[in-house]
Order: sequence, then C-alpha cells, then structure tokens
Amino acid sequence: MNDLPQHFLSHPFDDDKLKEECGVFGVVGVKDAANFVALGLHALQHRGQEAGGIVAHDPEHGFNSAHRFGYVRDNFTKASLMETLPGPIAIGHVRYSTAGKKGAVIRDIQPFFGEFSLGGAAVAHNGNLTNADQLRRELIEMGAIFQSSSDSECIIHLMARSIQKRHADRIADALRRVEGAFSVVAMTRTKLIGVRDPLGVRPLVLGRLGDNGFALSSETCGLDIIGAEFVREIEPGEMVVIENGLVKSSRPFAPAKSRFCIFEHVYFSRPDSQYGGRSVYETRRQIGVELAREAPVEADLVCPVPDSGTPAAIGFSQESGIPFALGITRNQYMGRTFIEPTEQIRNMGVRLKLNVNKALIKGKRVILVDDSVVRGTTSRKIKDMILDAGAKEVHFRIASPPTAWPCFYGVDTPDRSKLLAAKMSEDEMRDWIGVDSLKFISLDGLYRAAGEAEGRNKENPQYCDACFSGEYPISPADQLAKGFRMKTAAE
Amino acid sequence: MNDLPQHFLSHPFDDDKLKEECGVFGVVGVKDAANFVALGLHALQHRGQEAGGIVAHDPEHGFNSAHRFGYVRDNFTKASLMETLPGPIAIGHVRYSTAGKKGAVIRDIQPFFGEFSLGGAAVAHNGNLTNADQLRRELIEMGAIFQSSSDSECIIHLMARSIQKRHADRIADALRRVEGAFSVVAMTRTKLIGVRDPLGVRPLVLGRLGDNGFALSSETCGLDIIGAEFVREIEPGEMVVIENGLVKSSRPFAPAKSRFCIFEHVYFSRPDSQYGGRSVYETRRQIGVELAREAPVEADLVCPVPDSGTPAAIGFSQESGIPFALGITRNQYMGRTFIEPTEQIRNMGVRLKLNVNKALIKGKRVILVDDSVVRGTTSRKIKDMILDAGAKEVHFRIASPPTAWPCFYGVDTPDRSKLLAAKMSEDEMRDWIGVDSLKFISLDGLYRAAGEAEGRNKENPQYCDACFSGEYPISPADQLAKGFRMKTAAE
Amino acid sequence: MNDLPQHFLSHPFDDDKLKEECGVFGVVGVKDAANFVALGLHALQHRGQEAGGIVAHDPEHGFNSAHRFGYVRDNFTKASLMETLPGPIAIGHVRYSTAGKKGAVIRDIQPFFGEFSLGGAAVAHNGNLTNADQLRRELIEMGAIFQSSSDSECIIHLMARSIQKRHADRIADALRRVEGAFSVVAMTRTKLIGVRDPLGVRPLVLGRLGDNGFALSSETCGLDIIGAEFVREIEPGEMVVIENGLVKSSRPFAPAKSRFCIFEHVYFSRPDSQYGGRSVYETRRQIGVELAREAPVEADLVCPVPDSGTPAAIGFSQESGIPFALGITRNQYMGRTFIEPTEQIRNMGVRLKLNVNKALIKGKRVILVDDSVVRGTTSRKIKDMILDAGAKEVHFRIASPPTAWPCFYGVDTPDRSKLLAAKMSEDEMRDWIGVDSLKFISLDGLYRAAGEAEGRNKENPQYCDACFSGEYPISPADQLAKGFRMKTAAE
Amino acid sequence: MNDLPQHFLSHPFDDDKLKEECGVFGVVGVKDAANFVALGLHALQHRGQEAGGIVAHDPEHGFNSAHRFGYVRDNFTKASLMETLPGPIAIGHVRYSTAGKKGAVIRDIQPFFGEFSLGGAAVAHNGNLTNADQLRRELIEMGAIFQSSSDSECIIHLMARSIQKRHADRIADALRRVEGAFSVVAMTRTKLIGVRDPLGVRPLVLGRLGDNGFALSSETCGLDIIGAEFVREIEPGEMVVIENGLVKSSRPFAPAKSRFCIFEHVYFSRPDSQYGGRSVYETRRQIGVELAREAPVEADLVCPVPDSGTPAAIGFSQESGIPFALGITRNQYMGRTFIEPTEQIRNMGVRLKLNVNKALIKGKRVILVDDSVVRGTTSRKIKDMILDAGAKEVHFRIASPPTAWPCFYGVDTPDRSKLLAAKMSEDEMRDWIGVDSLKFISLDGLYRAAGEAEGRNKENPQYCDACFSGEYPISPADQLAKGFRMKTAAE
Repeated sequence: MNDLPQHFLSHPFDDDKLKEECGVFGVVGVKDAANFVALGLHALQHRGQEAGGIVAHDPEHGFNSAHRFGYVRDNFTKASLMETLPGPIAIGHVRYSTAGKKGAVIRDIQPFFGEFSLGGAAVAHNGNLTNADQLRRELIEMGAIFQSSSDSECIIHLMARSIQKRHADRIADALRRVEGAFSVVAMTRTKLIGVRDPLGVRPLVLGRLGDNGFALSSETCGLDIIGAEFVREIEPGEMVVIENGLVKSSRPFAPAKSRFCIFEHVYFSRPDSQYGGRSVYETRRQIGVELAREAPVEADLVCPVPDSGTPAAIGFSQESGIPFALGITRNQYMGRTFIEPTEQIRNMGVRLKLNVNKALIKGKRVILVDDSVVRGTTSRKIKDMILDAGAKEVHFRIASPPTAWPCFYGVDTPDRSKLLAAKMSEDEMRDWIGVDSLKFISLDGLYRAAGEAEGRNKENPQYCDACFSGEYPISPADQLAKGFRMKTAAE
Repeated sequence: MNDLPQHFLSHPFDDDKLKEECGVFGVVGVKDAANFVALGLHALQHRGQEAGGIVAHDPEHGFNSAHRFGYVRDNFTKASLMETLPGPIAIGHVRYSTAGKKGAVIRDIQPFFGEFSLGGAAVAHNGNLTNADQLRRELIEMGAIFQSSSDSECIIHLMARSIQKRHADRIADALRRVEGAFSVVAMTRTKLIGVRDPLGVRPLVLGRLGDNGFALSSETCGLDIIGAEFVREIEPGEMVVIENGLVKSSRPFAPAKSRFCIFEHVYFSRPDSQYGGRSVYETRRQIGVELAREAPVEADLVCPVPDSGTPAAIGFSQESGIPFALGITRNQYMGRTFIEPTEQIRNMGVRLKLNVNKALIKGKRVILVDDSVVRGTTSRKIKDMILDAGAKEVHFRIASPPTAWPCFYGVDTPDRSKLLAAKMSEDEMRDWIGVDSLKFISLDGLYRAAGEAEGRNKENPQYCDACFSGEYPISPADQLAKGFRMKTAAE
Repeated sequence: MNDLPQHFLSHPFDDDKLKEECGVFGVVGVKDAANFVALGLHALQHRGQEAGGIVAHDPEHGFNSAHRFGYVRDNFTKASLMETLPGPIAIGHVRYSTAGKKGAVIRDIQPFFGEFSLGGAAVAHNGNLTNADQLRRELIEMGAIFQSSSDSECIIHLMARSIQKRHADRIADALRRVEGAFSVVAMTRTKLIGVRDPLGVRPLVLGRLGDNGFALSSETCGLDIIGAEFVREIEPGEMVVIENGLVKSSRPFAPAKSRFCIFEHVYFSRPDSQYGGRSVYETRRQIGVELAREAPVEADLVCPVPDSGTPAAIGFSQESGIPFALGITRNQYMGRTFIEPTEQIRNMGVRLKLNVNKALIKGKRVILVDDSVVRGTTSRKIKDMILDAGAKEVHFRIASPPTAWPCFYGVDTPDRSKLLAAKMSEDEMRDWIGVDSLKFISLDGLYRAAGEAEGRNKENPQYCDACFSGEYPISPADQLAKGFRMKTAAE
Repeated sequence: MNDLPQHFLSHPFDDDKLKEECGVFGVVGVKDAANFVALGLHALQHRGQEAGGIVAHDPEHGFNSAHRFGYVRDNFTKASLMETLPGPIAIGHVRYSTAGKKGAVIRDIQPFFGEFSLGGAAVAHNGNLTNADQLRRELIEMGAIFQSSSDSECIIHLMARSIQKRHADRIADALRRVEGAFSVVAMTRTKLIGVRDPLGVRPLVLGRLGDNGFALSSETCGLDIIGAEFVREIEPGEMVVIENGLVKSSRPFAPAKSRFCIFEHVYFSRPDSQYGGRSVYETRRQIGVELAREAPVEADLVCPVPDSGTPAAIGFSQESGIPFALGITRNQYMGRTFIEPTEQIRNMGVRLKLNVNKALIKGKRVILVDDSVVRGTTSRKIKDMILDAGAKEVHFRIASPPTAWPCFYGVDTPDRSKLLAAKMSEDEMRDWIGVDSLKFISLDGLYRAAGEAEGRNKENPQYCDACFSGEYPISPADQLAKGFRMKTAAE
C-alpha cells in the first residue's frame, strides 16, 4: 500500500551506479543519544539518501521516534525535532529503497518498532533477506499485519512470535529463521544490540564513546564524527548486547566462513573508513596501482571520473608516472531535489553535474578512471564530453571487474538484462561506449589490492563477489522462485 | 511511540466543548470513488478536525492510501494527491484524537489497513471500544504488533486472527469480541461494508449514488454534498455488505434495545443532517421552545452563543416572543492554525473569536442561549464581554441538561473532576459564572424536543444519555480497571 | 512585472460578491504595537483576505516589516515573526487585489515604505485613486521607479518629491495631488497619521488604548478586539497626527459634503461595527424590516442566504411575522485553499460551501433573503438547491437595490457588462434566476434603513451610492480615459 | 528595512573563507531563455549561494520575474516556476549578501527592474560600488525611493533619471556616475547588454548559443553547461549591446589599465573556467609548483584541504615528488540548511564537514595545502584533527599571500581587525595555528603562476591585489568616509 510523500525526491542523474541500500547506527550510555545517532547517520548518508529514522528511549518519556524523507542534515539536526527524542539510548537508519515496492512510503522507513509483552524494541537492518517473501506469507497466514513493504519487517514479527523471555534471545530466534545478508542494530529500553549474519556480508563496527558509552556503526567514519574510539569489527555471526557499560558477545548461528562484500571496498564505503586496519582509500589507490600494471597505456593525463574514481586514478598515476589531473569538475551544488524539471533541463542530464575542463583536456590523450560500469550510459556521455572538449584519445580504466550479475544482499542493482557486462564482452563494451580502449581490473587484481597477496582463492573465495563472479554464497530463494536463473557450470 | 508531525496544529480557544471524535464515509460503484469520499469527509469535518485518511482500491493499482494531518479541504482536494487514489471503491475517516495517547501520530490516522491471507482490507471506526486495553494486551501476548495507540486497531488484528474465510465474516468475528460504541465502515477489493454496534450509539446512514453506486456516511449531510439519495439509517446491530450494486443485510450480534447518543441531537451532528425524518436543526429549535416553557425570563433580546446555540435561540425567541438578535459576532477567519502565538496574542483567548455588538447590547436585558456548559470557563468570559458592552442583565439558558459525567463511547470529555456540573449545583454554577440566572433544559424536556412526547422512559431510556444521567448502557470496563467510579444508587 | 507566489491561493466559489479591497490599522504608544496591529487586522480580515503587511518602528532596530500572502492568523500570530517587528508604533494593511494587475505580487502588498531625506515613512491605503494612471505616467517621466502595480504607490512617490520639511505636510501635499477615495494610515518614527478623503467615502475610526496609546482602524470592530475605547470617527477631509499621547487635527483639503459609501452598511462592514452610534447589524436588520414593508409575500419560512443575509432576514421575519429559519447551512470548514482541485471537485461549486436543510424546506414556501445580486450565478444555484430539496415556492428578497454600476472607489466590481442589473429589468432577472418572485429594496428604503428618515436626498445624496444610481461623486478620470461611459441624462 | 524570510538559511561552518558576492548571466535569441539562464546560474552557484533571481521578457506576456532564497537547483528548475518566465530574452543573478545590511531581504535579490518612460529594463550587477552611500543620499534627496539595501539599486535609479532616449545610453550614463568594480548584465525588451568597469576587476565573458543566440556569463563554466561556444571576454571598460543576432561594442568610459582580480584565480572562479586561454585549474596547479619551489619541506604526504586546495596540492606534489593523497574527506551531504541545530550539533563545527583518514595519516609527516588563511580558526581545527589522527608533523602551505586587507570590490571580507595576517607575522601565525611550519606563496610567485613570467610589476601591477598588498586601484570613498585607514607609506 503506497502512501506517497507530498514532495517526492528523485534524482534522474545517478541511475548508473550500484547503490548501497542502508546504513545503521546506535548509541548507548550518553546524554541525548539521538544527537549522536543523527551525526553518525550524517556520516553514513552515502549508504542511503532517501530517508532516515531514529528511535530513542528515555525512562521518563518512553520510546519516541521520528521518520523522515530526505537528508539527515535537513531533518535530524533541528533542535525542535531532536528535543522530541530524549534519552541515553537510540538507534537510527538511513535507507535507499531496494527491497520495498516502487514508491516511497513513510511506513517503510526504519527502525521498525514493536511493543511486545516484555516491553518495546526497535530494529534497524542493513542488508537483504533472501527468504523474506516466503516468511511474509507464513506470518500473514498466522495473523501478522505488515505495515511496510520492507523485507526487514519480518524480523520484528518473528520476534513478536518468539516464546523467548528476553529480547536478545528473541532477536537471535528471529535471525535464525531468516536467510540473507544482514547487519542489525537493535535496542530495548536499556540494551543496545548488534548482530552480523554468519558470512558477515555487510559491515558493522563497535566504538567506545566517553567513559561509559558505546556506539555501533556500519562504518568507522560514523565513529569518527562523534569522536568515538574504534574498538573492533563485530565478527561474522556474532551478536553483542551492550548494557551498563558492558559488551557481552555470543554466537547464535552455526559457524561459517566470512564472505565480506568486496564492493564495499570498491565503491560503497567511504574512503576514510577502514577495514582490517587499512583505509578504504588506500585499497582503492592500490586498485589503481594494480590496474596500471595490468592495463598500461601511453597517455598525457590520468583523470578521475568524480568523485569515486579519484583514489584509483591517483594510484594509476603514481604507478604509471602519467600526471594526475582534475579534467572533469563536479558541480558541488547538485542535490537530489530536481523536482519536476522542465523538459529542457531534464535533457541536460549529466552536464548539470559534470563539466570538462576544456583548456586542460584539449589535444591530450586522456585516461579516465571510473569505479565501475553498470548500464554504461553515463560512460558514453562522459566520453562525448571529453571528445567535445578536444581530447585526442580516450582510454577508460575501470577499478572493478565487469558487473555481470545482480546483488541480492542489500544492493540496488538493475535487472541482469540491464547490466552492460551481462550482454557484452570487454571489446564489445569498448566499441559500444566508443573509446580507444577499455580495461577492467581482473578479479585477482582486485583481491590483491584488497590485501590478498595470492589473489582470489577459487575454492574458498575470501569475499562475496557474486556481482562479478555469479557465485552466490547464500541461495537467493525468493529470486529463484520468481524465475531468476543461476550461473550454469558451462558459463 | 510518538512521531510528532512537523507542524502540529493546536487551537487553544475551543477547549470548552465536548468533541465528537470521528466521522466515517465510504463509497462504492462509481468512478474515482476517493473524490466522493473526500467530499463526504469535508461535509463531516465537524466530527473530527485533526486529521483525515482515505484508502482506495483499483484492480490495476491495488490498495492506495493517504493519511494527513489537517483539514480535508487542505489535503484531499488536490489533483496531485487524489490521482494517487484511483478506483471505484474507497473509504475515509476524519478524526479528533480521543482514544490515542497525547500527541499526534500519523500512524494513528485511520482507516487502518491489513494485508490478510485472503487479501487486503481497510477499516474506519467511529466510536470507542470499552475493552480495548484488555484486548490489546491479549493480542500483544499472541504476537500482534500494534502500530498505533488507537483502540480501533484492535479490530484489524482481531480480523487477522479470525479463521473465517470471508472478510465480512472476519469483521463480524472481530466486532463480536469488542465492547463499546462503534459505527464501522470497511472495504475489501470489491465490497463496501457498514456495521453499527448493537445499541446503535453512533450514527451511520446509507445512500444511493447514481445508477449503481452506494455510499455510507456518519450523517446525511455527507450524502447531500455528493448528491446521493438518502435510503435509510443502518440499524443498531446491523451489518450491510455492498457489492455489484446489491446491499445484503445481516445481524451478527445478539438483539438489544437501541440507545442512540442524544448528544448527537444537542451538539455533534450538523443541523442540516436528519435522524428519524426530522432535521437536527428542528430538534434544536424545539429544545429552545421547551426551554422557554421550562425557564422563562423577562428580557429584551435572545442572543445565541455562536454558532451552535443559534437554533435553540430561535426556538426560545419564537416561543417567548422576545426578539432574536445576533448580539455576538463570530470571526469567520479563525482557524486551527494559531501556531506558537505570542504571549500577548494567546492571552486574547476568546476575543479573537467572538465580539459583542456593543451598540445593540448596551442597556439591554439579554438572554444568552448556549448548547452546553462543560468547564464553564468560556461561559464566564462571554458573560464578561456582555457586561463590558453594557448589558443590564445576563441570563444563560442551556440547551442541554448539566453535563456531569464523562462519555466513554467516542466523545472527548474532560475528567469528571473538570466538569462544572459534577462539582456544583445549578445555583452554584450561576454564581460561579456570575449571571443573573442560569437554567438548563430538563432531561425530560430534551427527550420531548427529540420527539419523545412522554419524555424519558426511566426504566428503558430511549437514548444513551450517560453524560447527563450517569447511567452507562455499556460497561466501561477499561475505565473501571483504571479506577473510574460509577454512579451509586445513592447519587 | 509579476512575481508569482509559489502557492497561490484562489477561491473559485466566492466570485459572485462585491469585494472590499482593503482594511487599515495603526497603533502608537504601547509596547509591541505590531501585536495589536496583527489583532486589529485579524478583526478586519473580511476587508481583504489575499495578503497582509505590517511595518513597525523601534528606536533600536529601526523600521522593520513583513508582507505575506494569506490570512493574518496564519502569518502574523507566530512569535518567530512578530519578534522581528518590535517597537511602540506600527501600521498594517490587509488587501484584496482590486487595483493591481492580475496576479498576486508580494511587492503589491502594503504598507509601502519610503526612506526620505527626512527619515523613513510607511503608508497604508484603503480606497482607490481615480487619477493614478495619469500620476504614475508623470512620476515615471520624472524618474520614479515603481515597485508595484498598486495605485497606492503613487502616494509615497509624491511624498518623496514634496519639498515640505515634515512628513505630515508631505502626506498632505501628496494627497492633495490625488483624486479618489482614500482612508490612509501612515507612520514615521514617532507619529501615527490618519487621513480621510474630502468626501469620506471609506471609513476610519479613532480609539484610545491604555493610558497613552491610540489606534486607528477602518472599523470599530478592530478597536474592540484590542480592547481600545472608541473615541470618534475621523471626519471626511480630516488629518490627525498622533504623537506623545496627543492627537492634532487639521483640514488639508477644500471642504466638501460627506458621501460615505452606503455599501459599507449593506455588506462590507462587519455587523458588530458601528457608524453614527448605530451598529451595522441594526441597519441591516432595519433593511429587512423595510423590505418586508415594500415587498411582502405570503410564505412559510424566511431563510437567510448565509451569512451576510442573516440580519435582513431577521428583520423581514420580525416585520412580516413569518418564521425565521436556517434553511441553508454553510460549511464552516471552507477556506481559501482549494488549490488545483480535481475537476470533479471543482464542479461541486457552491455545494461545497452550502447545503439545504431538506427536512425543513420540503413542501414549504420559502423567502430567501440575500444582501445583493451581482452576476446572479450564485442566486441561480441556490434556487436550484432549494427546489431540489422540495420547496413549493421560492421568493428572493434582496437587501440592496440592483447593482447596475461598477465602483471605482476601492471595491472590486466586475465590468458593467457582467452586472446582471445592468442588463436586465427586475422581472427579467426574476425569470433568468427562475424564482417565483424577486424584489430589491428601493434606494429610498435603503436610505431610511440607514437612518435617513426622509429617504435619499436627490439633490444632495447623503451617501455615495454610485453602484446603484450611476451617480459618481468623484470623476473616474482613469476609467473615462479607458472608455468607460457615464450615465447619460436619458438613463 | 528588513523583511526576514521565514526559513532563513545559515551555514555556520564556512565562515573562514572570503566569499565572492555575485554571479551574473544573460541569454538572448533562443526559445525559453530563462531555462538557459537557470542552468548558467546553477553553474555559477559558487559565486553566490544565498539567493537568485531571473527576469525574462516575452512580447505577449511582458516582463516577468522570480526572486528566491536558496539554491538555483531548488527553485529555478521546477516547470511550474519556469513556465511563468517565458520569452527569448532573460537575465539572472546569484548573490551572496555583501553590500546589503545584515539580514536577508527578498527585495535585495537582483536583477532589479525599472519601468521607465521608454519601457522596462532589468539590471544584474556583480561587484561593489565604492561611492554608493553618497549616490544614495543624493538620489533620495531628489525623491528616489529605494526598495533594497543593495548598492546596486543606485544604477537603476540613475538610469531612471537619465535624459538619454535609449536604454543603453542610460546605462552608460548611470555607470559613468558610479565608482567601483562592476560587471553588469542588463536587458530591455529586445536587447541584452553587458558592461565591465574600466579596470575590469570582475570577469564577464561572451558566448554564442545556437544559430542566433548569445550568452553573457561571469565565467566560462556558465557557457559550458548550456553548450554555448566561448567567443571572448568582454574587455575592461567595454559595453556590448546584443540584438537580432548582432553584437555592437562601445567604450563608454575613459581608458584605463586592466586590473583583473587575482583572487578569481586563487579561489573564486571555478577550476574549469578559463581566463586568457588557460584554465583556472592550471593556474592553481602552477601555484602549487611555485610554492614547492619557494617553500620546500621534507614530508611523506601532500594532502589538500578539500576541495579548493586540491589543484595546488597536485602541483606541489608533482614539483616536490612527495606523494599526493586525500588525507581529509569532505562530507558531500553537507548543505546550507543546518537550521537551528542543537547545541551539541553546533559544537561539532568542522567535524560535520571534514574527516581525517586516520589509517592513512597515522605516523606521517603531512603537508596540508590550503587556498588561503582568513581568520585562521578553521586552520587550527584542521591541525587538531590531523594531530588527533596521529600525524608526526604538520606543515601548512598556503596558495595565496597573507590576506591582510579587506576587499571593497565585491568580495565579502571580515573587518581588517579580524584578518589574522593583519595582526601577525608569518611566524606568529604559525605559532598561533600550532603547526611545524607555515608558508604562504609570495606575491611574485602568485603572479608568475598566473602567467606573468616577470612576476608583479610594482609600478603598474597587472592585477588588483589589494587584499594582499593594501594598494587599492579604486578609491574606497564610502569606506574612507566611515573611517577606514589606507596603508601608509611607512607600512
């Protein structure tokens, strides 16, 4: 059931990227925890720009919540709103839309809240459940009333039906029933709870805040903004329950080998976040180094496609010795709010956002470094702009392998039929885009850049790389039921 | 859990009236049914000004809904919104807040919607359930997750748990579990359903619209605005299911004697609505006639307290022969939107809304006719204004008996301790308000004006008059559990 | 030059009335004068609903202003706005659009402000200048830059060019150059100034506020709301300058005979305002009495067309002995904000606003009393509604003579070609509207009701009645230049 | 007179930069010129973020305008607004506030419009008039009424009083009376007019658009976005009048030597704009090269302070061989709309906007390249963040000389007393900021980077560099009258 917001925000110019769907954040043990959650969500805004929500609890005022469309900075920074969210414990969520039906519905904005017989609890979820359709049918059959189209709502209904006497046990009960990728941050009146799925597909980190406080965040950049000290990553399959300044860890799931999403390194995570002690920026720069080794080309300038191609372009320049230059300028005043633009303005497309530095590019052989190619439409437009500016040659270098398979673990990917790499070989893509050369980093090169000196372990891949390899570590049950065809042995 | 709207509307100047909490409306069998529902709700706006909602269904687009704070005319008349509610069947609701906790929450706005295993259904409820607290506890124990603080949400959860195979049977199942006063309008993909509680406390009428359409409305004025022909009242304890141009009637409850709310005649219903073939206006005028007989007084002018006292004042004038005059002018530009006024303006209180016609009143003996006295605070202010204008005498005549007991059947009444008539005799009230005389119509007089020639049948009262008599026809179970004390035999 | 507001308010259902264009209000000698101005404008809202403005002065913060589209209550009651308008002196203005070009422009909202070499001054004007076009051309020729399309802006430019050394003298200079109808309220840093044109066409009254304060208001109802004591009317051709608790009166114009607008009695002014010691309500009631004498008819009920026909209907009922009844109910929740309604809703027209009390009207002979007939379109619709409700006969009685001529003195009238009475005789109008009888009060009857026992003095009419008689007391110079044809001796 | 917007936008975190006050744009000879102006202004948004305005003319609809607070993309891209601005000629303006009084006033938003006896004209102005106070006094004395607090409004009043018969001649008349820096874009019903002051302090460029159209823009990036071909810069002291596809050039002023603002190279202009055939990016990169030569230092990383320090940091890295790295990440979701934040959030200050890449910086000797130091407060905070992240050494390199003098030619500079470089030597600044070393580029180095191989010509400086040198090429008359003290021979 759709309940359309009055001013729906749409952004027609960013549709050629994969999109992370969510970021989660939670804080306990400080005054006005919701303010810290707002800041954390602001730092995680790149993980979901459509909407955000915060639930807070205070012994005097009980549970309070606010769910809003739009940026964190436009909603959750106003004193008038934040004053309605008092208390020492709070969790929050930013979301892109992925798993909901088309159309933005305020009831789909997380965290979800449930009043149980043992007291209220709120849950925020980053990831995607691969058996949500089936669970939803079962729950409805048993009398559950769903308020949203989000797969994450299953978690709270499973909790409501659990016979466990403690919230944490009910969460564990619920998460044992679901399949898929999830990093969950939850709260009761006094407990902050964090859980990662057995494969640890989505990230979740723990930080210490002041004397007695703790924070959970999708990425370390969320800890930095509130001045929290990074403690460690929550481990795949781990649940932590934080109360009274103590962190209790448990393992509610069967053990499994870690398969962290490698695209978090390539594109999703912020460059100043870190995993395994190394910054995402450094991994991306290293991808550029590997790419320069794998696919060198003579040229005058290495230019990033702003802004996500920048670290790899720096690495490519440093390895190749070809000067790095900002040949394309991004308009920093682009937002998400081009509401009902005139036809004339709609047609401007990418030019509203990017401009080529003509005086710099004219007559040059240019290497363009981008993070990925999805549909390829933006790549073509950028190539046109560069040639219009008088470039002599254009070479594309892509900091990820060809994206040939959809992600079912919490990333917004087009249908397989829309993925350029699912339909064409590298050479065909080069010709279709119309550039002098086009090269993607190899899967092995990507693993090396991510710190795996030996490259990808074909038997037991260290990461989830299904979008490149078609090898899905968790069965996409709902998708198979809808007709999705897995990679065959022959492919 | 409170989710405060960003611009919460409050109106500090109308707090001295009882307030109906809801109006319901439904239409089936016409193009763009939601437009008709919007108009019907506009006509029923006096029954609930805080918020409104509409759910519509279309075979192509499924169920769609919109829930908004504010007036119907400000939300549900815009083409951009109404286009999102297509289809030949729709129901709607306007509400005041009554049964929810303090604070306005968008999730509390009806109609409520549930996706059941046999398909979706929406429910809108006018009235109040007297055993909702207990039901809610039971349902939560069984795993239900409540989204609102509204007692009406119990109905949809009871439906979800019913084992009946048809929606109508599930509604009957659910309503047999609840106690209290209710007029319910519900819809499935194809059926419009209307039900009244066994005593018929709240009104509900049926109208015919065009060739094949039907409408259900709280009052006949809702039928008038859309040009629907009044067919009949839904009877106490009756359920109607309307589909394909046919109205099927059934009786899901044990038979009971009708106890329609007499305050609908006194104040709640619009004067141009009709019950039992007579307009509410005419009943109110007749109250004035009775009042003039019961409590005559010599005076120069009969003035209504605008606007609800007008019909009774006309009747009083006609019976007494004392000229009717508009001695108090209401500012027609008062709205609900005095948001955060300055202190100076807040203190103006009633003067923002009412002004005395000094040139008319000066030196006169004035009879003021008002519909009711609740806290009495407004009566005092009006008396002050009239005396400041130079009136020689002020006589209050009230078109209802003293309001000494709270209503638990869907009307927003203050705590008993705040009701002037619960604390004082008629003479004490006269002195406290500070007027030359104060008289209320007798309960028998009121019944006579409402068409009961013999007055009130003490053994089997024809109406629910609990707010005057303290005799509650339905046990207020939740209230008793919270400590409410019923009238004793001695009182 | 049009600068359209983003959410322009339009109200398609009130286009069949003449509309007063403005109300003016000023206060000096109290703390936070702007708050009092806001309240005064709220009481004068019926004189202009499109927009309002306030200018205030404070020694510390200088001149501050706010101009807003929409109701006073929606803008000038918020603490956040009113705090920006500090100081002991302020003036304000509410406006309908009249003299500006089509389209709402924030620059057209008064008061107008000018920074002169002798300090700033603000001016608010109720009325219309009949030589504004010519003055504007002259001023532009001399280098003046007009910011608005309002004729009133001429006043401030004429002040800027005056060689007088005092603001009051400059205002007098300016107003001696203009022709037309005007009541002006102006302010400097310390002086509140009020002026009425030589004929006193538009009203302006003086009140005393607290120990040292004074207020100027278009009507006495503006004094009532702030608790100011009515002192006297500003006389035609008089200027008052109020400073330090003293009111100085002067006569800047050649003496002339008073010609107050008689339509202020009929429709424009609020019923609780008073002129010459008698309330407007009483004059209107007396019109009903005269009408009952001039045009009696046998019937069962006298019903007002809400709300402006009510006092005359009361008078008609009292004189004729036919019972007064509220046969038509006005929806009190109609506002101005039916923005872009759906076609279906737009077509509801008058039914959104009015409903007939069917149970009351059925089978009755009904006299409808309305204040005026302009285009006649609404009268036809009301007649249809009454007949649909089953009335046996419908008789219209109109509380003003036929409106056959446009007003050029500050009232929004349609082109003469659109006025029903300019095209048809009384009998033709009766047939066109389709009622059993239609009668207008005579011009003499109207004068009698307004207190002129001898009726209208044909040689020296006591009022301006140009809209009825076609006799214009001030030459409409600009209109004549545009081709308007005055009444000929033969007509 | 202040007329505060209801939701005033403020951004407390960008107050440590000089701010360009305006951008101007105009288009003639294309369908729907206002759409192109909107795009041009979007590209020039960095020159003024507070507000924007567009005036357009169409033979059928005359002059229309829209003035709005906020970003171009949020206002001037909506079809509903742009449809109100039809026609083949339009001009626009984006502004920061500079020359107006404190407080945002919609009447201060340009373009300004005047209806003259020879027809309407609109004017948009980038720059600042140094004798505006005196002109304003004279004009008010002569009867002019100013609507804004903007110095630019003088131009339109001088035009109104000119006795010239053609608009272009009136503009020339007006601009000969003013002193200061100005690039003006103006329009009549058919002519697009561009003028630069005799010294050419502010930029203005001409482009060709389609077959018959032309555009004027502050910078070439405004031409790029609409696909216009860069023709040439308007020359200092030149006026162009464009009509019917023809560009007529004239020289209304006495000849003077060019003194283009060198800070346009350093910071104001967008890096992809070009002057003299070279991109601003390239000049900035060259500043980094010069800086590395003038002030080398041993270190591990060269990091830009985002985003404006990036080109110089690239140049510094390339010249020094020290690796370039993105050690500080800017949050791309920061906007201008932190309205009334909570105290807690306000105190986060720079951390909301910037984050240090800890994993990268830890243990490193870091060179930070920034474009300028104004108050120095942000430099201190960035230093703290870098040290908190574990850097071993911090060296600041500044891509401009010390900013020791305020600009009076259209740039928002703090009072001289607030400029760090006006109070301290380079060493004192280093100690106050608390870094291991701090070096500014020399004035000669800056000139060399800007293409002057011989450096600054001390007798006849090629640029206006008053903010660095204190040598003002145009006398700041109004400022001197207010007590500003020029540099003495001794300084």
